[in-house]
Amino acid sequence: MAEKFDVVDIIRTKRDGGELSPEEIAWVVDAYTRGAIGDEQMAALNMSIFIRGMNRREIVDWTRAMIDSGDTMDFSALGKVTTDKHSTGGVGDKLSLPLGPLVASYGVAVPMLSGRGLGHTGGTLDKLEAIPGFNVDVPNDRMMDILKDVGVVIAAAGAGLAPADKKIYALRDITSTVDCVPLIASSIMSKKIAAGADSLVLDVKVGSGAFMKDVDAARELARTMVDLGNDAGVRTCALLTDMSTPLGRTIGNSLEIRETVDVLSGNGPADVVELTCELARKMLEMSGIHDADVEERLKDGRALDVWKRMVRAQGGDPDAPLPVAPHTHEVVAERDGYLTKLDALALGVGSWRLGAGRARKEDPVQLTAGIEIHAGIGEKVTRGQKLLTLHTETPEKFERALESINPGIEISDAAPTTEHKPILDRID
Amino acid sequence: MAEKFDVVDIIRTKRDGGELSPEEIAWVVDAYTRGAIGDEQMAALNMSIFIRGMNRREIVDWTRAMIDSGDTMDFSALGKVTTDKHSTGGVGDKLSLPLGPLVASYGVAVPMLSGRGLGHTGGTLDKLEAIPGFNVDVPNDRMMDILKDVGVVIAAAGAGLAPADKKIYALRDITSTVDCVPLIASSIMSKKIAAGADSLVLDVKVGSGAFMKDVDAARELARTMVDLGNDAGVRTCALLTDMSTPLGRTIGNSLEIRETVDVLSGNGPADVVELTCELARKMLEMSGIHDADVEERLKDGRALDVWKRMVRAQGGDPDAPLPVAPHTHEVVAERDGYLTKLDALALGVGSWRLGAGRARKEDPVQLTAGIEIHAGIGEKVTRGQKLLTLHTETPEKFERALESINPGIEISDAAPTTEHKPILDRID
Repeated sequence: MAEKFDVVDIIRTKRDGGELSPEEIAWVVDAYTRGAIGDEQMAALNMSIFIRGMNRREIVDWTRAMIDSGDTMDFSALGKVTTDKHSTGGVGDKLSLPLGPLVASYGVAVPMLSGRGLGHTGGTLDKLEAIPGFNVDVPNDRMMDILKDVGVVIAAAGAGLAPADKKIYALRDITSTVDCVPLIASSIMSKKIAAGADSLVLDVKVGSGAFMKDVDAARELARTMVDLGNDAGVRTCALLTDMSTPLGRTIGNSLEIRETVDVLSGNGPADVVELTCELARKMLEMSGIHDADVEERLKDGRALDVWKRMVRAQGGDPDAPLPVAPHTHEVVAERDGYLTKLDALALGVGSWRLGAGRARKEDPVQLTAGIEIHAGIGEKVTRGQKLLTLHTETPEKFERALESINPGIEISDAAPTTEHKPILDRID
Repeated sequence: MAEKFDVVDIIRTKRDGGELSPEEIAWVVDAYTRGAIGDEQMAALNMSIFIRGMNRREIVDWTRAMIDSGDTMDFSALGKVTTDKHSTGGVGDKLSLPLGPLVASYGVAVPMLSGRGLGHTGGTLDKLEAIPGFNVDVPNDRMMDILKDVGVVIAAAGAGLAPADKKIYALRDITSTVDCVPLIASSIMSKKIAAGADSLVLDVKVGSGAFMKDVDAARELARTMVDLGNDAGVRTCALLTDMSTPLGRTIGNSLEIRETVDVLSGNGPADVVELTCELARKMLEMSGIHDADVEERLKDGRALDVWKRMVRAQGGDPDAPLPVAPHTHEVVAERDGYLTKLDALALGVGSWRLGAGRARKEDPVQLTAGIEIHAGIGEKVTRGQKLLTLHTETPEKFERALESINPGIEISDAAPTTEHKPILDRID
C-alpha cells in the first residue's frame, strides 16, 4: 500500500529546523511502530529532534501518536477517582511505596504501573520483589479487583501501553538521543496518559543522582510534562525535588522496603516523610480531597494497614522477614567535622556495583545489596564514627563500590551554611 | 574483542558540536564498515555531522578512514604521469568522453573510474554502453594494458575502492543526510584519492540541474575537495561551471555519444568545446605540460583517434551506427522572441522520464531516450520553430516528460542582457 508521506522529506524538514504537521507526526510514529520505516531513519529523525527541538504543539502530537500506538487503561468502571505518581528516578527513591497506600487510605484509587531499575537508580518493582512472594505481574482484571478492594496496586506496565515509546526508547538509548526534553517528556507522558488515571503528580528529581543535573532544565521538563498531561485531560502537577544526596537512609531493594515500613509506621526519615506527605497532599487535592491529615495517617497505622493488604493482594507476606545480605562493610568518618557532602551519584553507583542494580535489562539484581546511611548532610561527625554500612552477596565487589563511594563523602570544619531542602519548586 | 571506543560517546560529542579525534574517526568508520556499529548509530552520527559540521582536520581524517576501508589503485608501474577528472554531475554532461582521449593524446595516462546515473543526471558508463559492444567492466591488469597502449580507459569503479563510502552513502540516501559539504567532499574524494591518479581536476556544477544550486555553497564544496586532494598528495584544482541550462545540444546516452564524436571531430557545440579544452589544459598543466594546443587536437583528428582506439580496446565498435529511438516528438516555439530560459533541471527530469535515466540503482535505462536541443539560450526564435526533439522507446512517456520540460522553456521579447558563461570560477 502506498504510504501517505515520505520519511526522507519528514527528516529533512526537522533537520532544517522546520515544524512537523500533526499528520506527519501521526504517520511517522505509526509507520515506525509497524516497521514501514527503518531504525536508521528514526535515528536520524530523533537526532534532528534532539538538536532542533519540537514546539509545544509538536510534542503534544508526538505524545498522542505514541499513546495511539497501543492500548489505554480505563478505570471508569471502578466508580472511584484515580490518581498516579511518576518520578524521573533517583537514588534511594522509594516514595511510591509509602505514597500509594497512604493516598489509597482516603478512598482514592491508585493504579501504579512501574518499571525496573537500570543503571544507578533503583526500580520500584525490584524493591517490591524483595518481599517474599510479592508478584508484580498482575492481569488487568485482577488489577481492577485489587483497586476495588484495597485501593492501590503497584504492578509492571504491560507491553501494550505505548509500544511506539518502547521501540523509540530502545533506539534513543544506543544513538545518544536520550537526554532531550521533548523526547523525555513525550516518552514519560505517553505511558502515563495511556495508564488512564484521572490525575498525576510528577516528581522531577534534580541533582547529581538524577537524570537532570540542572534546575532550569528540570523545570523545563516539568513544565512540558505538566502541560502535556493537562492538554490530554489528565490533571497534572509537578514537584522539583533534590537529588544531590540520597533520599532517606537506605539504598537498595530489601533495605528500602524496610525503610518503607518505617515510614508507614510513623518512624521514617524526615526527608522521605516530608516528600511522601507533600506528594500525597497533591494527589489528594487533585482528587478533590483538601486539607488531608496525611502525617497523622502515617502514625495511626491506617496507611500501614493498606500497605499490608496490598502486599497480600499481590501474593506477598507483609510480616515475613526481609532477606538480609550475608556480607557487610562499614565506612567510617576519617576525621572530625561536619558531613558536607554525601553525593547521590557516588552512592547510587556504589550501590549498583554492590549488586543492587543492573547494567542491562536482562541482568538479575541482588535483593539484599545496597547501602545503609547512618549520618545525614550537615550532621556533626567524629573520627571513626560509622557513616555507611554496605551490603552485598558478593563481597569481592566492596572494593569497586568504595572507589565510587569514597570520593562522594566530604567532611569539613565548618557546618554547611544552607539547610538541605528536599523540595525545590512546585509547578501546577 | 573489546572495542577502543563507545560509539554512543562519539555520537554525543558530535551532537553537542564537539570535535572528533583522528582516532575516533578512524575507529568509527572502520567499525561501521565491519558491522560492529549499527546503521541506526551511523545515521545518528551522520545527522549530527550534517547539522554540526566537521572542521578541515576532521574531514581529512574522515576521508582517510574511508580510503583505508578498501583498496587503492597504484599506477606507478605504468611509467606515465596520470591524471583524472570528476564532475559533480549535470544534465548533458558528457565532458569526460572527449576529455579523456584528448588528454591521453599528449601521452598522459587517464584512468577514469566512473559510475552510473541516478535521478535526472546521466552517468558516463550508461552513455558508453550505447556504443555496440562497449564493456565498462575492466579488470585491473587489463586496465593497465589499455593505459599503456592507448592512454585512456573509462571503466566501472570496482567495489574494492572505499567500501565504507558505499555503505555510508546508501545510508545517507535514506536518512536525509546527502547534501552536506563535509560528507559530500569526503565521499567524492575518498574514491578519487583511492583511484590513485597523480592529479585531479574537479568540475563542480552550479545551477538548477546540479546538486549545488548556489554558487557560494559550490565554492565551499570545491575549496574543501581541492584542499582534501592536495593534503593527500594528489594535485587538485577545480572549475565551477554553469548548470542552469543543459551542456551542449544533447541529453541522453546514445545522443551524447553522437555529440562526443562531433566534439572530437572539431564540430562540437561551443560550450562543450570550451569546457573540454579548459579541463584538458588544467589536467595537462598539472601533469607538467603547459600551453597545450588542445583546440587544435580536436580538429586534427588526433584526439578522435585515441577515442576510437579506447572504444576498440574496451570491446566496442567506434564505427558501428549508434542505436536510435523509434519514437520522437518535437517541441516548437510558441511565439516569436528570444529564448531566455532552457532550464537544466526541467530538461534533465524530462529526459529521465523519457527513459534515459533510472529511479533506482537496479533499474535499466533506455540507451536511445533523451532530448536533442536545437536552440540555445539567448537565441532569437520564431513561432513554430523547432526547439527540442524528444526521443524514447516508450511513446506513452511523452506526456509526463513534457509536463517537466514545458515550464522550463521561456521566450521573452527582450534578448538576455548577460551573456551565458560556462565557467563561473576557478579554484586552485
